[in-house]
Amino acid sequence: METINFRRDLHMHPELGFMEFRTASIVAETLQLYGFDTKYGSEVMDKESRQGVPSKNEIDKAYKRALNNGANPKLIEKMEGGLTAVIGTLSGNKPGPTIAFRFDMDALPILESSNETHFPFVNRFRSKYEGAMHACGHDGHTAIGLSLAKEMSKQNFAGTLMLIFQPAEEGGRGAASLVAKGVLDNIDKLYCMHLGLGISEGEVCGGSTGWLATTKLKAIFHGTSAHSGMSPEKGKNALMGAATALLNIQGIPRYSDGITRINVGKLSGGTAANIIPDKSSMTIETRSDKAYINQELEESVRKIIKHSAFMHGLDYEIEVIGEGTTIQCDESLVKTVTEEATSMNTFTSIKDIGTISGSEDASLLIKRVQECGGQGTYMIIGMDLPAPHHNSEFDIGEKNLDQTVELLYKIAKKELH
Amino acid sequence: METINFRRDLHMHPELGFMEFRTASIVAETLQLYGFDTKYGSEVMDKESRQGVPSKNEIDKAYKRALNNGANPKLIEKMEGGLTAVIGTLSGNKPGPTIAFRFDMDALPILESSNETHFPFVNRFRSKYEGAMHACGHDGHTAIGLSLAKEMSKQNFAGTLMLIFQPAEEGGRGAASLVAKGVLDNIDKLYCMHLGLGISEGEVCGGSTGWLATTKLKAIFHGTSAHSGMSPEKGKNALMGAATALLNIQGIPRYSDGITRINVGKLSGGTAANIIPDKSSMTIETRSDKAYINQELEESVRKIIKHSAFMHGLDYEIEVIGEGTTIQCDESLVKTVTEEATSMNTFTSIKDIGTISGSEDASLLIKRVQECGGQGTYMIIGMDLPAPHHNSEFDIGEKNLDQTVELLYKIAKKELH
Amino acid sequence: METINFRRDLHMHPELGFMEFRTASIVAETLQLYGFDTKYGSEVMDKESRQGVPSKNEIDKAYKRALNNGANPKLIEKMEGGLTAVIGTLSGNKPGPTIAFRFDMDALPILESSNETHFPFVNRFRSKYEGAMHACGHDGHTAIGLSLAKEMSKQNFAGTLMLIFQPAEEGGRGAASLVAKGVLDNIDKLYCMHLGLGISEGEVCGGSTGWLATTKLKAIFHGTSAHSGMSPEKGKNALMGAATALLNIQGIPRYSDGITRINVGKLSGGTAANIIPDKSSMTIETRSDKAYINQELEESVRKIIKHSAFMHGLDYEIEVIGEGTTIQCDESLVKTVTEEATSMNTFTSIKDIGTISGSEDASLLIKRVQECGGQGTYMIIGMDLPAPHHNSEFDIGEKNLDQTVELLYKIAKKELH
Amino acid sequence: METINFRRDLHMHPELGFMEFRTASIVAETLQLYGFDTKYGSEVMDKESRQGVPSKNEIDKAYKRALNNGANPKLIEKMEGGLTAVIGTLSGNKPGPTIAFRFDMDALPILESSNETHFPFVNRFRSKYEGAMHACGHDGHTAIGLSLAKEMSKQNFAGTLMLIFQPAEEGGRGAASLVAKGVLDNIDKLYCMHLGLGISEGEVCGGSTGWLATTKLKAIFHGTSAHSGMSPEKGKNALMGAATALLNIQGIPRYSDGITRINVGKLSGGTAANIIPDKSSMTIETRSDKAYINQELEESVRKIIKHSAFMHGLDYEIEVIGEGTTIQCDESLVKTVTEEATSMNTFTSIKDIGTISGSEDASLLIKRVQECGGQGTYMIIGMDLPAPHHNSEFDIGEKNLDQTVELLYKIAKKELH
Repeated sequence: METINFRRDLHMHPELGFMEFRTASIVAETLQLYGFDTKYGSEVMDKESRQGVPSKNEIDKAYKRALNNGANPKLIEKMEGGLTAVIGTLSGNKPGPTIAFRFDMDALPILESSNETHFPFVNRFRSKYEGAMHACGHDGHTAIGLSLAKEMSKQNFAGTLMLIFQPAEEGGRGAASLVAKGVLDNIDKLYCMHLGLGISEGEVCGGSTGWLATTKLKAIFHGTSAHSGMSPEKGKNALMGAATALLNIQGIPRYSDGITRINVGKLSGGTAANIIPDKSSMTIETRSDKAYINQELEESVRKIIKHSAFMHGLDYEIEVIGEGTTIQCDESLVKTVTEEATSMNTFTSIKDIGTISGSEDASLLIKRVQECGGQGTYMIIGMDLPAPHHNSEFDIGEKNLDQTVELLYKIAKKELH
Repeated sequence: METINFRRDLHMHPELGFMEFRTASIVAETLQLYGFDTKYGSEVMDKESRQGVPSKNEIDKAYKRALNNGANPKLIEKMEGGLTAVIGTLSGNKPGPTIAFRFDMDALPILESSNETHFPFVNRFRSKYEGAMHACGHDGHTAIGLSLAKEMSKQNFAGTLMLIFQPAEEGGRGAASLVAKGVLDNIDKLYCMHLGLGISEGEVCGGSTGWLATTKLKAIFHGTSAHSGMSPEKGKNALMGAATALLNIQGIPRYSDGITRINVGKLSGGTAANIIPDKSSMTIETRSDKAYINQELEESVRKIIKHSAFMHGLDYEIEVIGEGTTIQCDESLVKTVTEEATSMNTFTSIKDIGTISGSEDASLLIKRVQECGGQGTYMIIGMDLPAPHHNSEFDIGEKNLDQTVELLYKIAKKELH
Repeated sequence: METINFRRDLHMHPELGFMEFRTASIVAETLQLYGFDTKYGSEVMDKESRQGVPSKNEIDKAYKRALNNGANPKLIEKMEGGLTAVIGTLSGNKPGPTIAFRFDMDALPILESSNETHFPFVNRFRSKYEGAMHACGHDGHTAIGLSLAKEMSKQNFAGTLMLIFQPAEEGGRGAASLVAKGVLDNIDKLYCMHLGLGISEGEVCGGSTGWLATTKLKAIFHGTSAHSGMSPEKGKNALMGAATALLNIQGIPRYSDGITRINVGKLSGGTAANIIPDKSSMTIETRSDKAYINQELEESVRKIIKHSAFMHGLDYEIEVIGEGTTIQCDESLVKTVTEEATSMNTFTSIKDIGTISGSEDASLLIKRVQECGGQGTYMIIGMDLPAPHHNSEFDIGEKNLDQTVELLYKIAKKELH
Repeated sequence: METINFRRDLHMHPELGFMEFRTASIVAETLQLYGFDTKYGSEVMDKESRQGVPSKNEIDKAYKRALNNGANPKLIEKMEGGLTAVIGTLSGNKPGPTIAFRFDMDALPILESSNETHFPFVNRFRSKYEGAMHACGHDGHTAIGLSLAKEMSKQNFAGTLMLIFQPAEEGGRGAASLVAKGVLDNIDKLYCMHLGLGISEGEVCGGSTGWLATTKLKAIFHGTSAHSGMSPEKGKNALMGAATALLNIQGIPRYSDGITRINVGKLSGGTAANIIPDKSSMTIETRSDKAYINQELEESVRKIIKHSAFMHGLDYEIEVIGEGTTIQCDESLVKTVTEEATSMNTFTSIKDIGTISGSEDASLLIKRVQECGGQGTYMIIGMDLPAPHHNSEFDIGEKNLDQTVELLYKIAKKELH
């Protein structure tokens, strides 16, 4: 019941990436309550390594709103500017390995449904923040993490349990700053998880490998404005550069030995009909099931942007605003998940799924753990969804929440026996 | 002195096109004070023929601000939704021709300078509305019109004097709705005027003919969004359509028998890096010194937009958001301006200027008057400017204001003798 | 030895698609010699269904050259205009099924190597026709077919043996006209084969399924020329249409559920620097491992061409100049190939290969046989190649030729026992 | 009569630029006959400064054809490789200025009309060289030059007469090599001329100034081919570069202070549907009535080509294949032409024409003469044309030929009195 209460409260107060002040405040207070050594803010995040950070103005607004909605002022003061990760650590009474679980906390910029068929609306926990919504289940993830903390706080175990609550998973923006801070460097095993993702109720995938490596870029073109009637030749047209880049980026070749994806998702520039546009910006995404291909795609995009700019006498900047890589799940962790899930009678079958064509910045966390000699996996807990992820009618099955807590609890116990 | 007072008050309260509620309120009250039969709102404008109308939200905000800054609630109630033209008519005591003068009232979306060299800042009448500014002298035009009204109200004359205060000249958006309402149809002679425009202090141009015909268009492309990783083939990419249109519009051929101008001044579309863009919009401008060429350019633009849309399975809309045509000044009016100016010792020389490469929607008013058998001209009153038009340091020379009032007064007297 | 002799003679006289007059003459005479009922020309091809047919001029030249190099005038008279397919049928002495084998005969427009390491050069059977070359092994295919005819002519068997010698496989241009003529409609089992294709010496693939469906299109844009200095506005620029089409075709989206390929392989247009180009043409290719996706790609290409043309006031034509589809090999035929190959001690292992990323118009033949209730397969006979297919140093291993004849002979005997 | 005979013989044997072997042979022999000191080949042309030179193969073919059609082998031996300019100098018996006349000799790649209304066809002097035609009157120019040589050879005069017969005027390709050789450096007055050009019969323009400065460029893109199905990512697509360049070149901005023209007149690239194109080439032309604007346009084109290439990993080359500049005619020469023409009763009026929107490489000759302290003009002799220049029905009025010879003779006499 408690997991559901947590989840509903979070669902009503959805906060976008790097602005999860109220969420992180609740998480930190709860972890502290259960005796976890709790760190947050610049203790666990490298400020400069964050990607796609919202404007100061947006962050300030979210900060005030969090204060007005019950966030702990002392706690979130240390998260100012968007340092909203929280990591709780609980040591057992005997030495042993460090086992970590990762939960993401951020919501999406989607207006939640007010249909009579929409469970959160009917049950009065629809988003109170118009235009923001937990439409990917991160409210559930966070709630599961908190209940896991509670369960484990009652146990004797060997080793160290680490619970990582990560901001800004959407767009692949938050993980890099945790990696840069070094908080992944001493983990023996890292378990990441997601609800849903196309797997049916009762099914569990112990190690999902179909994630695409991805890079999200923001490019800005700087030109020179001029009066379009009186001196068109004096302008350096930032939209000519952007349109040329767009068409050429969309035309980057397919690869024979891997999946590729390219998208210019956003473009804007110019001010008025009678002014040669002096500025434009665009948001681009590349993906591939091979990390090296994604890197080549990114290089192609950068080359196209550079020369589209220079062709028109423009300056340009490129910023990485999000990223993720492929995931290689370690077999022994997959096996542990599978065995523990099979031992519960709630999970009826085990599913191995292929290409997801989505991306996850947990990939960066797992990769870092593995680089440091540890192991990792990305598991999926199936559920029957009334609507796809990122849809305004999305909802998770609340009965799955405590089952998932139990599964994670069993995994933790096994690893920390 | 009074003209300057009017001007400074207007300068402090600059209102953008179709939102000149406070300005129009002052104009209407002043005309009424001087005995003019004063009409405004839907009496003088066809609501549907306005072009490039701001959003309801913007108009409502401007309306409230006008009320807070002294606009007459009873008056501007009739201008609701942006019907801000005012026309005053004063009949002489003898029959005679109908002579009209036209003044434009709107400001520009420019942040006014706070430099110590900027006259309005130093003299404390800088814009109170941050981000809006009279940077084209329309504050002067309107003030001149009001002083002319006062002068003429004291005179006996033959015929009818009509003073037209037009909204939304910037972008060529306001004139069409006056034409559509028919208020130009019974004018014998129409005098239009502008301060500055590159002519030196002391010079007057009685008939400026170098204006370019122009059309401003807004195009919107409607496609289908899709997840760029999971189902890119399901999208209909509205930015592919827009970028293709942009490059092809910029490539519309030159004309051997006339000046041409093309500009895609603004483009925006898409929502996020990982979503195939389902909507985009662009603002386009064509110009030519030949009206038929401008029309062909517009047709080329429309054709390119249509097929750029259909090529990618997109729907599209095109809206005319501004227009102007060429101006043929009637010789007899030019002669009258020239003679009256010469007779004053303040105007030292007479200037005939060529191509301006700018556009003016007074052209539509003059054209309509001429179609109905009347005559028109567009005169320019020179002044030494500290900065170009549409610049944040722009300012008019206040000493020119009463000279211009006198010139118009002399023209009116001559025509209505 | 005879197979090698056939092959070397064909190798010295390589003929491009629809111009295999000398080759077809030899094939027809040989089949007649061995008692086959031999048909060719319009008896076995639908003239109008050929794709990518060379110009009359090219065909006429090839025809004369064939005559000068020993083609039988009476025979090739019936092939005039490029009807160069030959089908030989031999009936057994008992009733039984109709079993067909298909061989392709055409060469490539490649200048053959004169390197001292190039076997055909060293052994004096390098191409006598400069600029044409058997660089894909079709000389071997045809020679194998002729030797198979000889072997089978000595046997008693039940049913009917059909040997199909197809023109213009390169570019996927010849098969459609055989299908249209109906010659595939009464075949029970169709065996198609290729040498090489990346499989090692001694390996055989009984059923290759990785072929991509493909369409090759030729698009022509018709505009209006004009003097670029004196009247640029009078032109309708056929290169603007083509360049716009090219960039947009390259930008056709990836598909989430299949491989896609797009290429604009050729583009030309215009006449001189000072003339607005009035004509342009381009060659485009689409491919996919799913036939329905290839069809959607083709539709997207057609839509882009249409609207790129209309955008610039151009007319356009689109012609299909080649095609192929996917291949589903029937299990029982694959099994027969595998068993017969295994029974020979020359073929040491059996290989199942995946995606080839190439295309084959034998796919159209197999598809037609299957539509009519028959079965088909596409087998590959491995060999170690000194250079890739379509390379000027390509060569086949001659010792594999008689092994392959034996394999086909064994298959034929098994099927026609 | 002789002028007409010369002209008809030249008309029957039209030779394209840098391949005027027979024409130059006749010119040189005739000048020698009349006692002119005659130079040609590398004596008067700088080989490396020629622009847009045909291929060796084309030149060799033309050379052989000239030999077969009566060219003097000894003479044209010195013109080998396309050095086809001829300059004749005749010194008077007294010292005096050097006065030069320039005539162009080359024909166009146009198939001459065989209509019954076409004068050269009816009178049996239609082009014997199918596909080549004197469709711009250079046959007349050369004939006039030869008759002028004859007339002047009979006269006593003071100073030096120089007759310049220039190759390859079409495309603006020949003049630069004369300039580079220095043959213009000691001329006091240079008279250039053209027949027709839109001026009516009986009219003469003494100094035509409306010529546009122009540059013709050839760009080549070098990429890497790859199989479009098997390894599209390995290609560097030379047509992507070319199409991007084309669209951006067509989109180079208009200029507010001058006429501009841009044309990509020709584009070709790629080899086959299934190969990523590894090479493409394009022909581009810029023009303006201001030399500095033409130079800026050329720079913009070069920048676009460079970055379109680099964007796709391509190498590129740019070659100037033709050029011309603006013409400033010296007043005293214009006056001389006008006076002499007026003094003849065949020329009824004098015409001053404005913008021609065409280009002429005589501009380079005049510019060089002026740079060295001399003077120049470009005169036009009007005639009524049955069809426009560069049309297959073009013809000059033969009766104008001797009138023009007389006019030039009178000018020469006046200058060399």
